[in-house]
Amino acid sequence: MASANRILTLENLNPNVMTMEYAVRGPLVIRALAIEDELDKGIKKPFNNVIKANIGDAHAMGQKPISFIRQVHLKQIKIQILACVSDPSLINSSKYPSDVKQRAELLLDGCGGHSIGSYSHSCGIEIIRKHVAEYINRRDGGIPSDPQNILLSAGASESIRNILKLFVDETGRKRKTGVMIPIPQYPLYSASIVEFGLGLVGYYLDESNNWALSIDELEKAYKESLTKFNTKVLCVINPGNPTGQVLPRTNIEEIIKFAYKNKLFLLADEVYQDNIYGKDLKFHSFKSVMKSMGDPYSEMELCSFHSCSKGYMGECGVRGGYVELVNVDPEVFTHLQKMISAKLCATVLGQCAVDCVVKPPEPGEPSYDQWLKEKTMVLDSLKDRARAVYEAYNSMNGIECNPVQGAMYAFPRIQMPQKAIDKAKSLNQEVDFFYAMQLLENSGICVVPGSGFGQKPGTYHFRLACFCLFLLQKTSSIAYRNV
Amino acid sequence: MASANRILTLENLNPNVMTMEYAVRGPLVIRALAIEDELDKGIKKPFNNVIKANIGDAHAMGQKPISFIRQVHLKQIKIQILACVSDPSLINSSKYPSDVKQRAELLLDGCGGHSIGSYSHSCGIEIIRKHVAEYINRRDGGIPSDPQNILLSAGASESIRNILKLFVDETGRKRKTGVMIPIPQYPLYSASIVEFGLGLVGYYLDESNNWALSIDELEKAYKESLTKFNTKVLCVINPGNPTGQVLPRTNIEEIIKFAYKNKLFLLADEVYQDNIYGKDLKFHSFKSVMKSMGDPYSEMELCSFHSCSKGYMGECGVRGGYVELVNVDPEVFTHLQKMISAKLCATVLGQCAVDCVVKPPEPGEPSYDQWLKEKTMVLDSLKDRARAVYEAYNSMNGIECNPVQGAMYAFPRIQMPQKAIDKAKSLNQEVDFFYAMQLLENSGICVVPGSGFGQKPGTYHFRLACFCLFLLQKTSSIAYRNV
Repeated sequence: MASANRILTLENLNPNVMTMEYAVRGPLVIRALAIEDELDKGIKKPFNNVIKANIGDAHAMGQKPISFIRQVHLKQIKIQILACVSDPSLINSSKYPSDVKQRAELLLDGCGGHSIGSYSHSCGIEIIRKHVAEYINRRDGGIPSDPQNILLSAGASESIRNILKLFVDETGRKRKTGVMIPIPQYPLYSASIVEFGLGLVGYYLDESNNWALSIDELEKAYKESLTKFNTKVLCVINPGNPTGQVLPRTNIEEIIKFAYKNKLFLLADEVYQDNIYGKDLKFHSFKSVMKSMGDPYSEMELCSFHSCSKGYMGECGVRGGYVELVNVDPEVFTHLQKMISAKLCATVLGQCAVDCVVKPPEPGEPSYDQWLKEKTMVLDSLKDRARAVYEAYNSMNGIECNPVQGAMYAFPRIQMPQKAIDKAKSLNQEVDFFYAMQLLENSGICVVPGSGFGQKPGTYHFRLACFCLFLLQKTSSIAYRNV
Repeated sequence: MASANRILTLENLNPNVMTMEYAVRGPLVIRALAIEDELDKGIKKPFNNVIKANIGDAHAMGQKPISFIRQVHLKQIKIQILACVSDPSLINSSKYPSDVKQRAELLLDGCGGHSIGSYSHSCGIEIIRKHVAEYINRRDGGIPSDPQNILLSAGASESIRNILKLFVDETGRKRKTGVMIPIPQYPLYSASIVEFGLGLVGYYLDESNNWALSIDELEKAYKESLTKFNTKVLCVINPGNPTGQVLPRTNIEEIIKFAYKNKLFLLADEVYQDNIYGKDLKFHSFKSVMKSMGDPYSEMELCSFHSCSKGYMGECGVRGGYVELVNVDPEVFTHLQKMISAKLCATVLGQCAVDCVVKPPEPGEPSYDQWLKEKTMVLDSLKDRARAVYEAYNSMNGIECNPVQGAMYAFPRIQMPQKAIDKAKSLNQEVDFFYAMQLLENSGICVVPGSGFGQKPGTYHFRLACFCLFLLQKTSSIAYRNV
């Protein structure tokens, strides 16, 4: 069949799929993979390997897995092998602590046929949902959480997409539902909003004030959006990705009041809640602040997301996450449950990883000391790197960077030489995309250009995962080698 | 906030989410879970436990996992623990065969940072895509398969939904893109088609001819659909779910010609390709038939899906699957890649399970004998049960059942007494939903009513997973106990 005869082409491909962009894994990453292939084939480059600083992928950058998580996984499978394929010697070995064995048994009790190979309930394994609720309750100083409001998913991404999908309004289509997201933002939001045909309403974070979230800016963005959209969702990322700020409690209160006043459904992306590095800073969950503000705020609709890919765990590849739905209409919840059931269930091993995150070993349990040691080591190391990244960038000419208070990324601002700006324009490329591509080609470092996250016009940034401290020396001037 | 003040309610919930139905996990399953809770609380029932025959979930029904798959998983994690948390004694043990260890090492080499906790490429781990392509090549008698056309996903469901999404046409919205699916069908299709706002075009399978797929019926359904939809996708499930028929090669050729004539994009759901029980029956992949038919058929666009949840593996909970895209427009493929990258990657452990499925041990390798023994045992047992189900149902009054040639389900037709029909109608329930609910309440057996899969008007069916043979005695008359 000649390509002209093809049934599915760019002429008729879903236009939302065509329009959506996802910068973290866009053309730069495709080029980075191609460069890796070229290196494998012996093609000479000014570097020996590609450093992927584009994504917060801890293990890929050498962070060690936490033993407790992996041992529980291991044990689950061991029990399976014991029970099912007669390999009892391993399970009877004394290599694993008793709390790991007990947890694995508890989780397996929650699995159909005592096997992780069974589908779970679409909402997730009951006992894990219970542990999540207990975790939230502890985290929020005793504010109740109901396991029935917890949905487990393959990473937080899946939950975020499931919730956004509820707001699609196909009936009239006169005005799309507007979803407010920070600029810069994590591109999952912009990509999904476009894919689902929702309306993207960006509000700028204030770079000159350490990426603060200003209510005036929220008001402005909201008002402007109403000419185009029926705006009814406000998404906040705290700690910020890619911007690394940690919201003060008073700021969260203001945001909640703003949302209440304008009847906005709150989405709190709190996947970096364990990643707080700034001195005297503390993570405040939207739920805890909202609940402590009393009526009417405590009754507002909120979805909060968490993940086992971030924090000190960094278990990205196993895909575990959850959403807590607070004050959501029970009938809406029923439809949501039905919708996710068409995908059957999230990976059971990913669900088990969530369990380990929300219910770590307790003092006195055999695994506790090692868990605490590993957790502290990872978080201390991230904290050191966050500071080092900040100091290093601010010592370089042409680069400025706010302190990394939380999360895992630096989002430095680069002053682009006019020559580079002209060159980029002549290639019809975004200026910072051009910078990032030059950096990749010349140094093997793969970062994400700021344009993928959004930035004020005329400013240029890139996002770098803080794991990749060792490459800092390279980024300063190398990018322009061939300009 | 009074519920009247809620932002997201049934008044404005995404209407597609509201309309979609997913029978396999619908209200019956919700009731089944509630009954389990009641039993746990000591409430007396005419049975002691609920038997979930609603879903093809092998492990939950007691099928043993295949050692090779689980050992490779185990080994991966062992290597992690070895390398990362200094537990070398386990990896050095001689408990696992050398081929399992080698495979695990190969897979880990494909993971960032040598860890399954890293994100993979969005399309999946390269070496696994290569193994999938080699598998397809072997399966199809040497017809080439390109790893670059393979996308790994969290089960086949995710791939099916990703491909369907490409056909959404938001621009004009005068005529939705029509997607032809068999009736009865697997409800993932009807649910996703409705969720995405596509047009559902059902074609009836011929129950009186062992659920055969008739070209006349395809023609008729296609022509009728054009008054409402721009029909351009034809989905075929082979072996059939829930109907269990295996398509003869000549029939597949006719279907391909029909699709060519009408410019239909082919989706071949072939997840039961290992589950063939009928005497002298053989699985023919759509790709192999299409390619052997030569030009112009060999150049047609096709997507074929496979999974590690079915076959002899039954690894449902780990969520592994893939799609092979054949002759798809490269530009469309690029957008598809971008779209799936927003979800980052499929669970890495699920991808590894796919690897074990497509690259089982070979003769002479240490794991081969045990693998073959287990595989044969599972498939023989399914075959026995498929025959037993057929015989048992046909020996009962008021139930007729076609032979189960393949897949994992029986879809018997039930003659409903007029009294039961009247009762159902008085309750405003589908007649077979009423039957299934009575069966559940009175016997604890959870089946899926035929209306969830589609059936000819005035006929009533239910789907039963063949694993659940032992419950056959119960289904005959027990359902009407309380009518």
